[in-house]
This record gives sequence, C-alpha cells and structure tokens, in this order.
Amino acid sequence: LNIQAPKGTRDFYPEDQRIQNYIFEKWKDVCLQCAYTEYEGPMFEHLELYTGKSGEEIVEQLYNFKDKGGRDLALRPEMTPTLARLVNQKGNALRKPCKWFSIPRLFRYERAQKGRLREFFQLNMDIMGSDNIWSEVDLICSIIRMLKSFGLNSEHFVVGISSRRLLKSLLDQRNINSPASVYLALDKKAKIGEEAFLNLLENAGLNEEDRTFFQNFMRSTNLSEVKSFCQSDSSLFALDELNQLFQALEALGHGDYISLDLNIVRGLAYYTGPIFEVFDRAKSMRAIAGGGRYDDLCSTLGGQKMTGVGFGMGDVVLKDLLSENGLLDDLKTPKTDVFVAAFQFDSLQVFSLCEKLRNMGVRTGSSLEPVKFRKQLEMADTLKSRFVLFVDGEKNDGQFYECKDLSCGEQLFLSLDQIMEIINE
Amino acid sequence: LNIQAPKGTRDFYPEDQRIQNYIFEKWKDVCLQCAYTEYEGPMFEHLELYTGKSGEEIVEQLYNFKDKGGRDLALRPEMTPTLARLVNQKGNALRKPCKWFSIPRLFRYERAQKGRLREFFQLNMDIMGSDNIWSEVDLICSIIRMLKSFGLNSEHFVVGISSRRLLKSLLDQRNINSPASVYLALDKKAKIGEEAFLNLLENAGLNEEDRTFFQNFMRSTNLSEVKSFCQSDSSLFALDELNQLFQALEALGHGDYISLDLNIVRGLAYYTGPIFEVFDRAKSMRAIAGGGRYDDLCSTLGGQKMTGVGFGMGDVVLKDLLSENGLLDDLKTPKTDVFVAAFQFDSLQVFSLCEKLRNMGVRTGSSLEPVKFRKQLEMADTLKSRFVLFVDGEKNDGQFYECKDLSCGEQLFLSLDQIMEIINE
Repeated sequence: LNIQAPKGTRDFYPEDQRIQNYIFEKWKDVCLQCAYTEYEGPMFEHLELYTGKSGEEIVEQLYNFKDKGGRDLALRPEMTPTLARLVNQKGNALRKPCKWFSIPRLFRYERAQKGRLREFFQLNMDIMGSDNIWSEVDLICSIIRMLKSFGLNSEHFVVGISSRRLLKSLLDQRNINSPASVYLALDKKAKIGEEAFLNLLENAGLNEEDRTFFQNFMRSTNLSEVKSFCQSDSSLFALDELNQLFQALEALGHGDYISLDLNIVRGLAYYTGPIFEVFDRAKSMRAIAGGGRYDDLCSTLGGQKMTGVGFGMGDVVLKDLLSENGLLDDLKTPKTDVFVAAFQFDSLQVFSLCEKLRNMGVRTGSSLEPVKFRKQLEMADTLKSRFVLFVDGEKNDGQFYECKDLSCGEQLFLSLDQIMEIINE
Repeated sequence: LNIQAPKGTRDFYPEDQRIQNYIFEKWKDVCLQCAYTEYEGPMFEHLELYTGKSGEEIVEQLYNFKDKGGRDLALRPEMTPTLARLVNQKGNALRKPCKWFSIPRLFRYERAQKGRLREFFQLNMDIMGSDNIWSEVDLICSIIRMLKSFGLNSEHFVVGISSRRLLKSLLDQRNINSPASVYLALDKKAKIGEEAFLNLLENAGLNEEDRTFFQNFMRSTNLSEVKSFCQSDSSLFALDELNQLFQALEALGHGDYISLDLNIVRGLAYYTGPIFEVFDRAKSMRAIAGGGRYDDLCSTLGGQKMTGVGFGMGDVVLKDLLSENGLLDDLKTPKTDVFVAAFQFDSLQVFSLCEKLRNMGVRTGSSLEPVKFRKQLEMADTLKSRFVLFVDGEKNDGQFYECKDLSCGEQLFLSLDQIMEIINE
C-alpha cells in the first residue's frame, strides 16, 4: 500500500497549516471589523441546486455522486447557491439587508494547475437585500482593507471594475439577442487578440457595424469615453451607477486601488449589475478575487426576488502572491510559551508543573518520555518556546525556578506568576 | 424548485455558527495550551485508505464515489487514516514524538439520529511515536481541561478507561481465537443484558468455562479485582499499564474524572493498548469522546511500525451536553464595537467615519442605505453594538462625537481615540 493524497488536493503539515490559519484569521478579522457575520452550510448539496442555477453543463465541472439512498449530490463548487438557499428558507424572518461571510472549502473537477486546485478554500462576503451602490462600496472597501492587512498595497494589486448591466443594456440598445456568446467573446478578448475576438463576435451573429461598436467600446479607458456609446436609458443608468461607485471609492481614498476594466465579464455567471475582479498589477496570476451584483439568483432557486452582491477570494492565488512578495516569511503564529525540562526526568514532577502553568493560561510543553537533557532542549526549539523552565534546577526554591529566555539566551530566575506576566505582555 | 439541505447535514445560520466558533475556539485554545500543533488533510481520500485499514465492510458506511477520472474516492469518515498517511509520507524526516491536532469535518452514511449526523466536526488529538503511558496521561489531561473550559465538571462527565491489550491478553491466555466476535459481545453487553451477552459469547465459540470467566471479569469494578483474572505475563503487563495510568491521573488531581469501565471496547477498531471513552454522568447520551492506543495503523497503511495514541471528540454530542446544562446561553462572541448612525443620512459621511474607525481596529457597522434613524438603531441592536455614534450629532465638534453606550444606555461625548481605548480594555 502506498496511498497518496488525491490529485488536486493538498496535505497541510503543521508548517503549511500555520499559513492557512494566518490567512483565515486575517480574513475573519477584517470581516468582523466591517460588521459581517459568519454562516456555513453543508459540504455537499443536492445536485439540482447547481444545475438549477447554472444548467446541466455545470455537472462536468463538479464532483457529483449518488449517495446510498439514491440522492444526486455534489460537493459544493461555490457557496452562493447555498447562501441563496439559506436566505430563501428564512424568507421574511431574516432582517435585511444582511452582511454575511463564510470561508467554505470548495471542490471543482478541473485540470489542476498553478493557482487552481480541485480542492480549495474561498472567502465569501455577500450583502443580501440592498440594491444600493454603497453595498458595492462596502465590499470593495473590505477587499482593499483585507489585502492591505496582509502587507499588500496599490503596487501589488488593483480592483478592476466593469458592469454586466452596462454590457447587457448596450446589447439591448443594438438589438443583439445572443448575450451569452458575446460575453464569451468579450471574456476571451484579452487572451486571444483583436482578430480572433472579431471572429467570435461574427460567429455570435453580430454584423460589421455591431462588431465595430464593441471593438471601439472595449477600447474605452475611462467613463467619459464610455458615455459616447450609451444611447438608451438603461445604458445611461448603468453608466451612472458606475460613476457613483468610482466617485465614492475615490472619495474614500481608494483611487489608487481601482480602475475601469471592460475586459472583465465574469464568464457566464449570474451577474446583473456592477462586476469586479482583483488582479496582481503584473497580471501574471489568476484573479485574486472576483464578484458582482446578482438580482435573480434567489428567485431562480425558488425564493422571492432579492438582490445580492458578493465576491469570492480563494486561498491559492493569494498565498502565491503573498509568498512571492516575501509576506509569509515571518508569521507571528502561536508558539509555545514555556517548555518544562528536567535534568533528572521525573514524569510526575514535569507533568504537574505543566498542568499548573496551563491552568494559568500559559502554553506549555514538555517531553513525554525520560529523554536526555539535550534532546529536551531540541524539543523546546522545535516548539519555538519562549522559555525553558528547569523543573529541578539547583537554585529552585519552590517559588522561583531557573529559566532560560530562548529569545535572547538570558538565564533567569522566575516565579510562575512572573512568567505569566511576561507572556501576557 | 424547493431544495433543502441534504439529509443528516446542517445549515449554520449566524446564530448557529456563533456556537460552532465558540466550540472550535475553545478546542484550539486548549490544544495550543497543551503544545499540540495543527494539521489538516483533504476532505476526501482514495477509498483504499479506508478499506486498507478497516476492510471492505467499511464501504457501507461511507460516502464513496468515482470521480470523472475513474478514481475511487470517499469523503473522510475519520481523520486517523489521513494522519497515518501524512506520518508515513514523511518517514524519518518527521521529528517524533509529535503531538498533533486537527478539527476535520467528517462524513458517515449512517442513520441520522440524536447525537449522530451524516456530517459533523470532530476534534482529533494524537501523539505519534511515543509508547510511554504518559502519552495517554497527556491526552486524558487535555480532554479534562477542555471539557472544564466549557464549564463542565466531574458532576457532568467521566472518562471511562479500559484496555484492548488486557482483553486481547485474556483471550490469548484462554486460547480463544475469535477476538472480533468476543469484542462485539463485550461491546454490546451493557445494552443487551446478561443473557443475550452469554448467548453471543456462545455463538463466538466460547465454552461454558470461558463464558463464566468473562462474565465474572466484566463484573470487576477496580484493578485489584481485575488482577485475579490475569495469569499471563502479557495480561499482567496490560494490568500494570492501566495501574500506572490511573496512578498518574490521580496524582495529577484528576481522580474524580476517571473510572475503570470494562464495558468500553471501542467496537472493531484498530486499538491495541489502553482505550477510553468520555460519557455524561447520566450516560443518557452517546459518547462525548473516545480513543486509545493503536500500534499497527501506520504499518498497515504501508509505513514503518509506529505507535500512536489519540482520540476524537465530536461537536454534536458536546453541543447537546453544553446546551442541556445551559452553558451556551450567554456566549461572549464577537460583537460589533461601534454602529455609526446619522439623523440625516449622508452615505459618504457615514462610510468615511466607518473606515476611520476600522483603521483603528474597531469593529464598525452602519446602514448601507439612507433609512430612518429608528431603523438604524434596530440594526445597531441586531449587531449587538457596544456604542452607537451619531455622526451628525448637534454637539459634535470634529473631535468629539455624541455617542450612546448600549450596555448601560448612557449618553456620552467621546473622541475616536477614547472609543478605541474603551473597546480595547
């Protein structure tokens, strides 16, 4: 038997888990700072929750299976359908708007590659039940705050903003009825070049005039240029919405972190309003985060009509970005405070003192076995202990113990209370 | 479409997730206090990791499936096989003994009932690579510390201790070659009564003398009574081991929390040494935790021979026990520190102040929309805010703001620094 971890999954040894915990804790801190509340759901759902939202094609990208009771289930590939289910279930009993977050583990049957695994974690923040542009502001402010809390700044990342409402209204304005194929073309434009892009538009049934229209539209770099393309009420409304969003974010001091990016389409997903994606400045990686407003998800899944806006930020690309910028090198992670060592190892004596220190809230380790003194010091080092306390030090008097401060090598003579005080500083 | 959560799973609305977080955080705190380090693994594994350990029968109790590449996978029903895989993979590169913990989400295809769901969380603590009885001491001390940290005491729970090594050596002593069927009988004894128990032993091939032997053995209530049944070196060794364990735990002050309980067998699992289960005193619930020593798991799964000892503690029974004892009534959970409200709602003004407070580390909420003042106060209440700050209070002077302390109803006049200081107290 030589069994490996399944393809596209990860093992988290203590040194890996330390990084995961660091990311999760920062995510949580900022969510709580911004007054979002945490929720969770099952790791798998009825398959129809996903096909109902995204159509049967989605099944190809899922881990789906029948359970022993014949139910069609799928490991969750994203959290938003579960969120919609939870909101639908409570109906009017839920006070809206709600600002909710979750850190689900997600699963997609895709080709594993850099920045993309079959199993990963993703922070989700969503606001349900508020159609005000300040929801977008709130979420984008949270993203910027979060990435800054990891030590990243506007030289590292940018939030690109576009609008599905704008795209849809321009398609309507020109009486184009194949939005899905056009979104696909727009989505691919940056990767495939101008000519292939125009071919895709032609295949989507756009005449030459329409193709030129979208070709020129996509060249816009600011909202005043965009304005010249908007000739319908709905496109002007979508433009105004974007204008408000940019103005608010600039007024809040985030101008350096945002830019208009019409290349952002968010695939074939369910967005209906402003959309955004976060990229590293070099755009050398996959998106760090992405989201937008969705109006129809809850009603599609059998609930009442309810607007929502949210985003997801995966752990894989973020970890790569932090790592490449040297921001994971010296994590302030839980360390052991005290390692109780003995020259002549008496298990009961060692364990009694450990228990006493733990009762005081001190993180305390020791050897489990009567090993040589030198081996005990190695263990203290592995645990990154602040102090080694010598339980049978010659000068110990029952209240004060011989200790060594491993942060500076100093020999000390401390009471347990003194140790606790130093630790709690 | 009216899609529910799959059978045997749970939705965690914010009020439910609050309780989960409370349990997870206490678990983590105590693990770190006791110098265990966290690890994690994939949510699913190759099926053979479980059949290799427990035989083909286990498949009936699993969520197993083929992925789109034809791999036989299973959602993890327990963490120990993953742990063994991780330890095997690193071989000698891993410094032993290691004290590791994890809080995996686990899945079992079983009949859902009180205290048992198809999807649940379980704290796992394990020590790999130390065959010293002080590993058991360390783990049992941690369990007791953990349950006490939730407010439980010796009136609520007891750690029952037995030994698979003792049972096995007594079977050997009497030349009985059907250990599995005997363990099954012993395991069921408490539930089925004396007569059915004796029938099961008879079916397992035990003659009358053997049946009487085990009937009498099971009546022992302390280790000196057990001694009269031990006539082989290995049974005396197993007895001595139990004696040491009880003596150490009593010397450490845990006498009230432990008892000899020969009814504990731990099913057909892989244990080879001392075993233990934690029950509520009334024994009205399923086990709160259970574990023991396993010698052969790593080698069975293709690694070198390595002893391990560990336990699992599920979230479901623990939550029931805490809830029945009123210990979840007033959770000190993350609350919002400040809610920024406005008499005349100016979004930019409100958001600017929110951002400022968050920059100071203050957990800050506000309305996203220009709603009535009264509605804003309701929101502050929902978020359990400590303070409401009136951003456009009449007396505000740019440095001091009109505030209300919701913990006592007092009207105050505070600077942002003063608020931060009060919050950080």
